[in-house]
This record gives sequence, structure tokens and C-alpha cells, in this order.
Amino acid sequence: MDVVTQISNAIGADRVLTGEEATPYGKDWTGAYTSTPLAVLRPANTQDVSKILQIANATGTPVVPASGRTGLTGATLAQDALMLSVERLNTISEINVKARTATVGAGVILSNLHDAAETHDLIFPLTLGARGSAMIGGLLSTNAGGSNVVRYGSTRGLCLGLEVVMADGRIMNLMTALHKDNSGFDLRNLIIGAEGTLGVITAAVLKLEPKPQAYATAMVAVPSLPVALDLLHHLQEQTGGGVEAFEYMPRSYIDHHRQFFPDVTGPFETDYDINIMIEVAATRPEDAQAAEDGSVPLNALLEDTLGQMLEDGTVLDAVIAQNETQRREIWKRREDAGEVAFFCGIFVNTDVALPLDKIADFEARLTPRIKAIDAEASEVIVAHLGDGNIHHTTYINRNDPAIMDALVEAVEDVVQELGGSFSAEHGIGVSKLETMKRRKDPVALDAMRAIKSALDPNGILNPGKVVPSAD
Amino acid sequence: MDVVTQISNAIGADRVLTGEEATPYGKDWTGAYTSTPLAVLRPANTQDVSKILQIANATGTPVVPASGRTGLTGATLAQDALMLSVERLNTISEINVKARTATVGAGVILSNLHDAAETHDLIFPLTLGARGSAMIGGLLSTNAGGSNVVRYGSTRGLCLGLEVVMADGRIMNLMTALHKDNSGFDLRNLIIGAEGTLGVITAAVLKLEPKPQAYATAMVAVPSLPVALDLLHHLQEQTGGGVEAFEYMPRSYIDHHRQFFPDVTGPFETDYDINIMIEVAATRPEDAQAAEDGSVPLNALLEDTLGQMLEDGTVLDAVIAQNETQRREIWKRREDAGEVAFFCGIFVNTDVALPLDKIADFEARLTPRIKAIDAEASEVIVAHLGDGNIHHTTYINRNDPAIMDALVEAVEDVVQELGGSFSAEHGIGVSKLETMKRRKDPVALDAMRAIKSALDPNGILNPGKVVPSAD
Repeated sequence: MDVVTQISNAIGADRVLTGEEATPYGKDWTGAYTSTPLAVLRPANTQDVSKILQIANATGTPVVPASGRTGLTGATLAQDALMLSVERLNTISEINVKARTATVGAGVILSNLHDAAETHDLIFPLTLGARGSAMIGGLLSTNAGGSNVVRYGSTRGLCLGLEVVMADGRIMNLMTALHKDNSGFDLRNLIIGAEGTLGVITAAVLKLEPKPQAYATAMVAVPSLPVALDLLHHLQEQTGGGVEAFEYMPRSYIDHHRQFFPDVTGPFETDYDINIMIEVAATRPEDAQAAEDGSVPLNALLEDTLGQMLEDGTVLDAVIAQNETQRREIWKRREDAGEVAFFCGIFVNTDVALPLDKIADFEARLTPRIKAIDAEASEVIVAHLGDGNIHHTTYINRNDPAIMDALVEAVEDVVQELGGSFSAEHGIGVSKLETMKRRKDPVALDAMRAIKSALDPNGILNPGKVVPSAD
Repeated sequence: MDVVTQISNAIGADRVLTGEEATPYGKDWTGAYTSTPLAVLRPANTQDVSKILQIANATGTPVVPASGRTGLTGATLAQDALMLSVERLNTISEINVKARTATVGAGVILSNLHDAAETHDLIFPLTLGARGSAMIGGLLSTNAGGSNVVRYGSTRGLCLGLEVVMADGRIMNLMTALHKDNSGFDLRNLIIGAEGTLGVITAAVLKLEPKPQAYATAMVAVPSLPVALDLLHHLQEQTGGGVEAFEYMPRSYIDHHRQFFPDVTGPFETDYDINIMIEVAATRPEDAQAAEDGSVPLNALLEDTLGQMLEDGTVLDAVIAQNETQRREIWKRREDAGEVAFFCGIFVNTDVALPLDKIADFEARLTPRIKAIDAEASEVIVAHLGDGNIHHTTYINRNDPAIMDALVEAVEDVVQELGGSFSAEHGIGVSKLETMKRRKDPVALDAMRAIKSALDPNGILNPGKVVPSAD
């Protein structure tokens, strides 16, 4: 009996898709990665997942866990493999208002969790463009980031408990809602970010946070990146760590954006080299209440801080949103980044992290190397400056793989020189597997291989992803 | 040639202590665990550590990493083993004010790092009673907690980068200062909290935080623990997450403390069942500046909040420290906990974690079971309520191991029923090895064993700690 039939018998044929029904699952959001899975399995509960993995492990059949398939690295590519979709594990089983936790299945869509939390005046802070499709299982498996990591951390920082089905089908129960737990190795964080290569996440206990009652949002121009970092620290001190977004849009990005959206004006009458989008938030209702003179405390705090800095020259220009419409306009410029980057000619796009004080060095070292590779290349940067995450794109005027490879190498060289990482928030998947092999500390790579073999001795879980072979 | 001679030849005889010189290292702070190491090795650099482990691995000699030896679980017991003390790796090589990081050796004493950070108006937030002896290596290896985890997280949350010498002597370089890094498995968090069983931490990059400019400290009596939790959430919203300590001292603790220190009065004129010590902090200098009427903004915020709650009956009584002396008095009652617990008759002491909303259930379920074991037993609780960490002590009037075992079991039963952990912040060492075997999820235990074998195939790193054998 073939493996798909075995699984159909074990979990029910209605939970197994093949042929045309399975075809849509062979594509992900990027469209860059396509595959033909042996079958698409849609288990209805953790026991089903356990049965699937028992059979796959016994038969040595590769299994690719998948959820919303909105990742950017091809981690759910499932050629000649079973695709295990957790989409039916989509129950929010508890919102615990007292403990501020949510207990969710791996197939819960991020925006559904947002909505469920908001009905209790709480938030699940993680947010990103794909929130309407991305699911908790995938977000945890890639340790997804986004624009408010500076405030709340990546997905890893928002997870208290996990349920994981291991390669042999056994269920590991780490489903606790604890803020302290020193009972052995940190298996939770090992599974988070492992992109389904060490186990299949089926459920999680997540942290909820109080819903901000007030936002103050501004665009600011500063004379240098070190000054921008000073501004970040100063705002953190003024707001008690209330900075929710601190995004860097250099002149290259503003110009590029304007080519795409010629009707958009601003952000300033004059163009500056270094533009920062700032959002601070407060959970105290009083901070959102207008005084008799119409001033709102949180806005006033931002006005005072920036006004002082305008006077002493550390800020060159500043615009503070006076209403929600103006706030949305400021955000839109930043959120257009995906569209502006991905649908504009031939390009090489990267997702790198640097120490907070090395961003200026990165730019200074990289530009001459790019020009040496292709004198006509142009660069566009947009960055989560508050957490050191840069998305750097180089546009070139011909589709030359050798040049594209050289550009990737140039970025990665500079990142390595400055103690950065070649993957900040997107993960490894297949797209960065070769980079892992070349750039990751070799002792760490061997440790990863040893752990992979220990927890998945038959190598059935998402093979060919994340962990490069040793040869 | 014996192994100690081999190591002496490799790293220099002056770095190897034997006989009487080694004797003091056979004791830890508790005095409960004593051993006679084969030798005490004091490497001067990471290369020395590498050489030691190469020789130990080749000869199959157990190695027990140690630093300040202030742990409470016997994790540095080194009978018939080499003790590898990292005390000479005591260099603070960088305080990076711009990036707010410190790069330190594993032998740096916590209070020395505190001092170094403070000269830059920054703090390394982790603090605990043993700060004058505890070293970074041990603090990371046990993922130490303390009283301000509610604000800053445990040690794990304060570490960005690690240098680790693996069992075979190879050096794993994870020494980055990145806030986002999705380049493969989370090896950093796997090593943190592993109590030296997976590798020897030799250096780290740690996060620094801005130094609070103002503190407001209070003792508050509330009618129930659910109301205390509401108070915590309310204060977090009022201060933007500025609660630094939220400590629970029930009547049992206040009474017990008073027996020990009969001269101490208070905290209130009336005695209450549920007393909470609160400290909030602000990093904005204005929050510490007295107005014309003498009021200080941060104190005023606490006064307003508590005043409102006194009116509506959710707070029964409250005292706010008006100066540093009063603040120290409030803190002293909490910090006496160690002395009060450990030097007062025959007792069973535990360190457990519970979901934030289960503390009252824990007390209600536990007391009848303790009375059933020993009708004359008395309980004292003191807890880091903000993070769900309870230190529960049962005092008994005779030294009966069967009763003591039964009491430990009773606590652990209730903890397990309520989804808690039998180790919150102290770790496992040898003292909780049997508990690990009985209580830890069996699939998680097997995963731990597999990882241990994968990274330390000869079993030389701190054997007999943390990971119980499978038989």
C-alpha cells in the first residue's frame, strides 16, 4: 500500500488532497517557488498529525509543514514530498484576559487572532503585510518579525508554550503559560524558527499585550544615522520604551517611491538624505485625551522632544500626524515598500541585520563595491532601524546571474565584516541554503546538523531546507 | 600521562590547582553540596578552555564548568571530575553606549558589570542577592531570574551573543550584537539554561538598558489575588510597562518575618492577608523632578492610581515610600526572604512557576494536602507575583525524610495540575534531577537526551546534572 493510501486510511480520505485539488498548494505567495506535492494533508487535530508523521517516518517519506505559505524563502516547497497543511487546526481555544494569553491552533490566521484579542481590549502585537493569510504555525516556524519588533520582539518573544509533533509522531507537550520556566533545555525556542525541520508545531500559548490608547506618529529628517540612534534612545527614555516603530527611509527610497507614486508629495518641502518614520504609543487613556487647548499629551511629548532637537540642530525637519488620515499617509509610504521593491525591474533584494551602530558603516562600505560590480546599478534601502534590520535592494538594467550573484556576495561580505546576519527576519528556506553553508559559523552548522539528526534521524522533516548538507 | 598532567602541559601548571588549593572549590554557597574535584582548572582565555576540553573529550574525563558557585541546585558539584572555573575570563572588553551592549567574559562578576554600565548612565538590569559573587557564565547557564524579571525578562532575555566551547573543544562563535537573527536554529537559547551540559560559555554580548531616573515604591494590601493581578495590569498600562517589581508577601510571610525581626513594624497598622510590594520606574528625568508643591510626578501617578482604588475598595491599604530610607525599608522586608527561609528550623523549600491567574488556586489546593501530611506543618510563601514565580516553604517540627519527600510531592502535584513548572528560576542541577525524571514531559525528556548525546557524545560535560538517565 502506498504512503498516501496509508495516510488516507489513518486520517480519512476527505483530509487528503491529490491531483488538481492539490495544485494550488504547490505555489506560495512569491510565485517564485512551485512544486508538485505527493499529496496535501489537512489534519483536523493533533492526533492526525501524529498519525501522518508515524507513517511518514516509518516509510522515510519527506513531509513539508505548511500554513499560510506567505514566506519569502521557499520553505514550503514540497517537490516529491507530502505537504502537511495545518490550516484546519484553526481554533482559538482560549483568550485568557486575566493571564493575558491566547491558546491557539497552528492554523489560526494572524488577523483572526488580532480580532479576537481586540474584543477584550488586548492586542497580539505581531503584525505584517501578510496578516490576512499568514498563520501562527508558519509565523512561529520562521520567527517572523515586522515593524514593531523594537517594542515587542519577534514572534519568539511572544510565545509562552508550544505543542509539537516530533518526527516519529510523538507529541511533545510544552503548552504552558509561564513567564519563568527553568526545567531543562529551551526546546521551545529551538523549535521556533526551525522552519519545520525539527518538528511540526500544532498549537501555541501566546502573550497578549494591553491595547495602546494613543499613538503619535511623525516623519523626521536628521543629519546622520548616529544622530538617528541618539533620537531613538532619547525617545525610548521619554516614553518609557514606548517606541513602536522606528523606520529608516533614505533619500533613495523617497525618490524611488515618488517614481512609483508621482502624486504623493512630501514628506518634507525640502528633500533630506535621512528620513525616519517614528511611532510611539501609550496604553494610558489620559495620553490620548485632548486638553482644553486641543493638545494631546502623547503628541505634545513628541512635539516637545522634536522641537527641542530642531532648536539644537539634531533634527532638521519634522512633521507630526495631526489625525488618523495623516497617520495613515505616513504609514503608507513605508508599507508601499514591498510593492516598490518587487515590481520594479531587475533587482537583488536582501534581508540583513546589523548591530544598531553599524548601519552607516554598512552603507559606506557597500556602495563602492556595488559600483565596482556594475557602475550603472542603483541602490534602495528601507530599514527597521530600531532593530537593525535592513532591506537593501540593488536595481540593475540586465538579467545577468553572474552580476546578481556578485551583488549578493557584496552585501553578505559587508554584513559579515560588521558582525551582522545574512537573515534578519525572513529565515533560510531554500533561498539562503547556500549562504548558510558559506557564511554560518562552521561549528554552529555542525551543531545544527547534529541536532537535526538527533531529532529527525530519518530526515523526513522539510529536508533540503535550513540545514545545508556537510559535503 | 594522567589527564591533569596533560592539561598542565597544555595550559600551564599555574592555571591548575590541586590538593588544598582546590579544596575551597569543592563547596558552593549553600554548603549543602561538597565534592573533591580531580583538579581545578583556571583557563586564562578561550583557547585554554578549548585545549582543556579537547583533552577531556579524548580521555573521557568529566568536566564541570563553574563560575561564582552561588547556585542553589548543586550544579557545580564536581566529584571525580575536573572543575573548569571561568573566573579568570573576567574582562569587560566593551561597553558600547551607542548600541547599548556590553561584551564580557564569562568570569565577570555581576556587580562589576553593574558598576561598569552605571558609569555610562546605563544598567545591566539582572540583579539578585548573590550579585557580588555570581558571574555571567553561571547566570547565563542557569538563566537566572530575580526581582525585576517582570520588567526585563530572565537572563536569556538580556543576552544577544555567546561564545561557547563545545565538548570536543571547538569554539562556536555566536558573538553578535543583533536584535534580529533568523540564520538557523536558536543555538544561543539552547546553551543558555543548559547548566554547562551542552557547552562551556566563555563570553557574551549582553543588552544594556537606560538607567531609571525615578522610582516609586509602595506596599499595598488588596482583598484577593485576582485583584492583585488587576492592579498589576492597571499599573502596567498607567506606566507603559514600568513595573519593576511586583512581589507578594502574604500574612504568613509578614508574621514569619516579624518573629525574626521583632523590632520591625508595619507594613500597615492593621494586618492583611495579601500584601504586595510594588516598584515602578521611569527613565524620563522629569518624572523625578519635584513640582512647586513638592510632589514628584512618578509618585503622584502611583498616589492617584492607588487613591482611586482605595476609594472603590479594590485596595485596602497603601503606603508609598516618601524617600530613599523608606524605600530601603520596604525592600528590606522582601530581601530578608533568604535569611528568613533558610535559617529557621526544619523546612522544605521550593521554586515553582504558575500561570499568573493560578496563584490563588495553588494556595487553596496545597494547604489541605500539606495539613494531611503533617497537621502541625506551617507554610510561608513569598512570590515574584508579576512573573508567577512562587517560593513556597513548609516548616515542620521533625527531621523526617519521608514527610519532607511527601511535602515536595504535594507541591509538585499541585503545580503539575495547574500547568506550572517545578523549576522557575533556580534550574535543575542535581537537586531536581529526580523531579525532572518524574515530572517533565517524556517526549521533551527524550529530545533533551538526544540533543545531549548529539552535542556531547562522550558525555563529559557536567554529567549527572539536568538530564536524567533513561533507565
